Amino acid sequence: MSPTDNRFEPLNPEFRTVIREQFERQGLLRNFDAKLLDIEPGSVTIAAPTGPEVSQQDGFPHAGFGWSLGDSAAGFAALSLMAAGERVLTVEMKTNLLAPAVGQRVIARGRVLRFGRSLCVVQSDLFSEAPDGEKHVAVMLGTMIRS
Amino acid sequence: MSPTDNRFEPLNPEFRTVIREQFERQGLLRNFDAKLLDIEPGSVTIAAPTGPEVSQQDGFPHAGFGWSLGDSAAGFAALSLMAAGERVLTVEMKTNLLAPAVGQRVIARGRVLRFGRSLCVVQSDLFSEAPDGEKHVAVMLGTMIRS
Amino acid sequence: MSPTDNRFEPLNPEFRTVIREQFERQGLLRNFDAKLLDIEPGSVTIAAPTGPEVSQQDGFPHAGFGWSLGDSAAGFAALSLMAAGERVLTVEMKTNLLAPAVGQRVIARGRVLRFGRSLCVVQSDLFSEAPDGEKHVAVMLGTMIRS
Amino acid sequence: MSPTDNRFEPLNPEFRTVIREQFERQGLLRNFDAKLLDIEPGSVTIAAPTGPEVSQQDGFPHAGFGWSLGDSAAGFAALSLMAAGERVLTVEMKTNLLAPAVGQRVIARGRVLRFGRSLCVVQSDLFSEAPDGEKHVAVMLGTMIRS
Repeated sequence: MSPTDNRFEPLNPEFRTVIREQFERQGLLRNFDAKLLDIEPGSVTIAAPTGPEVSQQDGFPHAGFGWSLGDSAAGFAALSLMAAGERVLTVEMKTNLLAPAVGQRVIARGRVLRFGRSLCVVQSDLFSEAPDGEKHVAVMLGTMIRS
Repeated sequence: MSPTDNRFEPLNPEFRTVIREQFERQGLLRNFDAKLLDIEPGSVTIAAPTGPEVSQQDGFPHAGFGWSLGDSAAGFAALSLMAAGERVLTVEMKTNLLAPAVGQRVIARGRVLRFGRSLCVVQSDLFSEAPDGEKHVAVMLGTMIRS
Repeated sequence: MSPTDNRFEPLNPEFRTVIREQFERQGLLRNFDAKLLDIEPGSVTIAAPTGPEVSQQDGFPHAGFGWSLGDSAAGFAALSLMAAGERVLTVEMKTNLLAPAVGQRVIARGRVLRFGRSLCVVQSDLFSEAPDGEKHVAVMLGTMIRS
Repeated sequence: MSPTDNRFEPLNPEFRTVIREQFERQGLLRNFDAKLLDIEPGSVTIAAPTGPEVSQQDGFPHAGFGWSLGDSAAGFAALSLMAAGERVLTVEMKTNLLAPAVGQRVIARGRVLRFGRSLCVVQSDLFSEAPDGEKHVAVMLGTMIRS
């Protein structure tokens, strides 16, 4: 979803502040040295560097590393559309891996597919970033609940 | 799956050694201070302590923390049945959250539902552990590939 | 889940009547000549015969045939615990196929894993039935919403 | 994926013939009076009319009806890229429902996200069609295996 997409109207004009604040409170994202790259209504992008601290047995990024970034990006994408004081929680989330993640960073682009009265359907696309470009490495599809 | 279940015959008699070795190489699990609690044919249990380093914005364990433990437990459960030299990779994995994880530890019990020629269907059950007992906090269902 | 499991207390003493009535109204299940085999609190079993009308290109039952039975069984399992007047709707549902379904019937055993204030996590196990016994052919894991 | 997208090169120049032939053999799709609307490399569209024969208890199309169309569309999308003689089988498939399907038809647009040596990651988008336009009613994400 591009930044110029007006399909979603945020309920809370301070949504960027809310998201930055909650991002700072996610200990796992600090552990991963993650960064918030972009916040738009219904769309949030997070990235974090690969490395031994987040690897699996063959040196590749652990699937859980990318999943965590994607879950957070999708959750924040849903949160960006919520009213002040609402919280977001993951109900369920599935990932399909497309390719091994090789590169210095993994980027998670989360977006809202449907923003409902209590449930939000969300998607995250994960990309690995290397000098020769980005590679689509996973697709995640799930549900967040507004509480 | 109890330790006395003989439904699965391991192809490699050294499967426990293989798993411990690959467990040690998972940087993310070391990051989480995870421990291997049990290894049986088709069934592996991993646990890790909760805390600020693996939390989300409200102080609860991040969904990605539990997902990572469950993915590893399920992957190792599949690996326990594979021949020497085979590798295990996640194809897809879904989690459904049942309850918030409150407690000092999250335990992931991974098991194989079906061990095929190339694909394995696996399940992980996540539990949070507190002084008053264990609570079932998530169910994960997914697919591993032998390579 | 066995019939003697008292883990779930139905809110509506007439739950069996509600389920039989809603089962009768599912046109797709009538199309499949499906039968309600068992109704317990939190657990419902449905079966339907295989055949050309529900097949895929190689003569096996279409994955959608089993999925439909499993979705209904899981939905009714959730409904069995709901108050009078509540409705059940599928939020999301995933199936993992374990083996080809060979036999005269497919049986779907749906059960509730967690019954929440608005969401229910459910599971369905599909079996194919042939003269030499039952074979576990699919596992389904999903979410229903109370409305 | 639009028809002009050349991202995928079919291995079998007769892919349209193969798909039409296998579509005709799917008894469940005949049962649903389904039609093949479009076949492109990596992208197949199928539609079928709603009605009492495919309904759930409230008169809406049963989730299994749409799921079946989406599974077939995604499977055929994968098959369109396979070599002559290969078969396609569903490994796993998840649906997230976005909105109730109201209208005369459900349209399933299946496409390949990744075409691998043995596994294909696929997606289907379901739409309901009514006089006032199309509505996005479900998203499906899954895995097919080449055999």
